[in-house]
Amino acid sequence: MENIKSYIEENKDRFLNELFALLRVPSVSADEEHKGDMYKTAELIKQHLLKIGADRAEICETEGHPVVYGEKTINPDSPTIIIYGHYDVQPEGDLELWKTPPYEPTVIDNKIYGRGSDDDKGQLFMHVKALEYMIKNNNLPCNVKFMIEGEEEIGSPSLYNFVRQNKEKLKGDIILVSDTSMIANDIPSMDVGLRGLTYVEVKVQGPNRDLHSGVYGGAVANPLNVLCQMVASLTDENNHITIPGFYDDVLVVSEQDRLEMDKAPFNLEEYKADIGIKEIDGEKGYTTNERTGIRPSLDLNGIWGGYIKEGAKTILPEKAFAKISMRLVPNQDPDKIAELFAKHFKAIAPKTVAVEVTPLHGGDAYISPTDSIGFLAASKAIEKTFGKKPIPTRSGGSIPIIAFFDKELKTKSILMGFGLETNAIHSPNEHYGLFNFYKGIETIPYFYKYFVEMFMK
Amino acid sequence: MENIKSYIEENKDRFLNELFALLRVPSVSADEEHKGDMYKTAELIKQHLLKIGADRAEICETEGHPVVYGEKTINPDSPTIIIYGHYDVQPEGDLELWKTPPYEPTVIDNKIYGRGSDDDKGQLFMHVKALEYMIKNNNLPCNVKFMIEGEEEIGSPSLYNFVRQNKEKLKGDIILVSDTSMIANDIPSMDVGLRGLTYVEVKVQGPNRDLHSGVYGGAVANPLNVLCQMVASLTDENNHITIPGFYDDVLVVSEQDRLEMDKAPFNLEEYKADIGIKEIDGEKGYTTNERTGIRPSLDLNGIWGGYIKEGAKTILPEKAFAKISMRLVPNQDPDKIAELFAKHFKAIAPKTVAVEVTPLHGGDAYISPTDSIGFLAASKAIEKTFGKKPIPTRSGGSIPIIAFFDKELKTKSILMGFGLETNAIHSPNEHYGLFNFYKGIETIPYFYKYFVEMFMK
Repeated sequence: MENIKSYIEENKDRFLNELFALLRVPSVSADEEHKGDMYKTAELIKQHLLKIGADRAEICETEGHPVVYGEKTINPDSPTIIIYGHYDVQPEGDLELWKTPPYEPTVIDNKIYGRGSDDDKGQLFMHVKALEYMIKNNNLPCNVKFMIEGEEEIGSPSLYNFVRQNKEKLKGDIILVSDTSMIANDIPSMDVGLRGLTYVEVKVQGPNRDLHSGVYGGAVANPLNVLCQMVASLTDENNHITIPGFYDDVLVVSEQDRLEMDKAPFNLEEYKADIGIKEIDGEKGYTTNERTGIRPSLDLNGIWGGYIKEGAKTILPEKAFAKISMRLVPNQDPDKIAELFAKHFKAIAPKTVAVEVTPLHGGDAYISPTDSIGFLAASKAIEKTFGKKPIPTRSGGSIPIIAFFDKELKTKSILMGFGLETNAIHSPNEHYGLFNFYKGIETIPYFYKYFVEMFMK
Repeated sequence: MENIKSYIEENKDRFLNELFALLRVPSVSADEEHKGDMYKTAELIKQHLLKIGADRAEICETEGHPVVYGEKTINPDSPTIIIYGHYDVQPEGDLELWKTPPYEPTVIDNKIYGRGSDDDKGQLFMHVKALEYMIKNNNLPCNVKFMIEGEEEIGSPSLYNFVRQNKEKLKGDIILVSDTSMIANDIPSMDVGLRGLTYVEVKVQGPNRDLHSGVYGGAVANPLNVLCQMVASLTDENNHITIPGFYDDVLVVSEQDRLEMDKAPFNLEEYKADIGIKEIDGEKGYTTNERTGIRPSLDLNGIWGGYIKEGAKTILPEKAFAKISMRLVPNQDPDKIAELFAKHFKAIAPKTVAVEVTPLHGGDAYISPTDSIGFLAASKAIEKTFGKKPIPTRSGGSIPIIAFFDKELKTKSILMGFGLETNAIHSPNEHYGLFNFYKGIETIPYFYKYFVEMFMK
């Protein structure tokens, strides 16, 4: 495996040109106009898999955009690594904000500019090229399956059914995903946790019609005021969530893990300046990264009611609405939290109003234990190629499909991402460093090697 | 004056037909298409005033719809009564909900159905006919001025300037207004108080852009949550408003006046059933009528921010807005209250957000002292014709122009209205009882008589 570096060096221009061909296809999943581009991109990936020596590669129809499936079996008794990635991209947005055309990949300052260069075409293609190396050099230590979807940017609506219907086909020992980022090129890190989500809409109904605020104001409870009071009471002065039982199942993170996480460099002044706030806020007793990484939160995502146009209208409105989401941490069950929320919200409603709670959606949190062989193999691979152990980090966001893989396939995922937070994914001028692209290709075979070694022990 | 009854009896059909001619003109002030109808109605009223013997009647141009001005002077040294009313009407609304055509007045069950039959053509025309009687019978005891505007239903935008520019012309000793209602035909009442108003819009700015609620939720203050907490804190557990100094200038109503007001019949179960609520609410220590009549209130009229469409979007929004109005009672200054509100709202804002307060508009409260000769004359007149003293009541609403007359002309207004709350003014099927129309004509000359007698003492 020591020849991976020279293999990359010999083939680096070809690798880049092959990636560029992928990047030139505007595979925007959100836009029906690009339906043809989705198939074109899926076909390109299928051809790549066949060309490097996969036993099989196919385009699988779904209710939406197709999934590319591929596999290479060396021995049915060997472990199997599943590569998950996505070939769809975010819409390019405002073209005027792009310094280079979004679908004409261009290298500037050793960075590849173009939509999808990082998220996720650039990252998924590293896996194709790493597999190419291992097959060519006869050092592929296990079986591999590829599952590359075309709907990640729109919430993977068809992948859930695809997974349910292909459980046998998707049997494997670990899922390896490169679709996240690390802190910096000289500070490698790995996401080991994703938060879950419970999202509800609430309605507070007061009188049966909008009332004149002069004639009734002061004598009739105003549902807007009541909603504000109810929402305000959902957190206390320490920013603890007051819903009874809310924290019951929260997985307490060990001091050791917190110390480990705390090694991630963090500049509070830069953080505040970036989002334009004077003071941070959050649950007492936790750092900013802990507040988003290992603790649940409760946010209003929207609120509305009464007169919201220009000028003044003196009504005491009949109803008020809010959308409220709670980010969850491992062990918290989204459905149970939705029930606890609804029960509490109804319990605190004064008799002057009627309250409805409608759950909108939810998703489980996900955790990749830092003592699992998947994590340890990835950590060792990164240490090998970056010269430093990766810092385990927690993302505040949610990737429900990862938790779903765990639940449905009983297979854990390892988030070994090589992007950087500054790569402007989802924004104009998305880019991906040449360093990261080649370093990813170099690191992946070591993951295979270490994972199989640890697995066989 | 004892022959007023027979005079009405002899002329009742003519009076009704004259009113019907007025009601047939759709003088909708809110609709530019009816500009011609506004002049047509104004001209009809002017002609009526000249015909009954006014010295002078004219159509006065304003920035908007014209004002009809008329006067009859019997002696420059005599007191002067000013009649204020309005010839414009509310839009008819949904025609399908009308049982009779809105501009084809029809008598059913002794009630005149038609837009403006009560508000305010029916009520203002009583004053024309009462004056006709007094002139014809040589018992007009004082001078009279008529100021009949055409923009009351749209907030009297041009009348403020008209009054400022015609202070000499509008000199008088009392303003008599029939544009309100009484409790029931056998329970006469008079509005003696109107609340004032301070209306503001607030903005709470958090981060400089909408943030991902997963990545930032729990670590960054959410302006929607903050707005709810701030608004919730504006009232305490007794529904007292917590703004420092808010109650400082509140005119405390005497026990005597509260007992007087309390005589007004009130059925709490009917009140709740009408607006569809299970429980009333309001400031501790006051009845429902007191809460709207003699105590200030604070209501959210609108609130909005974040994602308010279908479905779920997981943002931590950058800003939140609310419209907040405070109904004021006599002695509270709308501008001072706006300042107190702004000062307090900024003071309670956490450092995590920036707050803006924009005053939208305001108006003074108005009170007509029950020991003034204006009130006493009206009370005596009503007692004479209805056989019962009117109960003084307080309306929770605001008529800013009445407070403005007081301030600018230094003349008090008496709200001697003959409508009923059930007359569906502003709604389809507006109506006005024949009883009320004729009883108003009968009562008005007694007001003149008693007012002049008391004034001359």
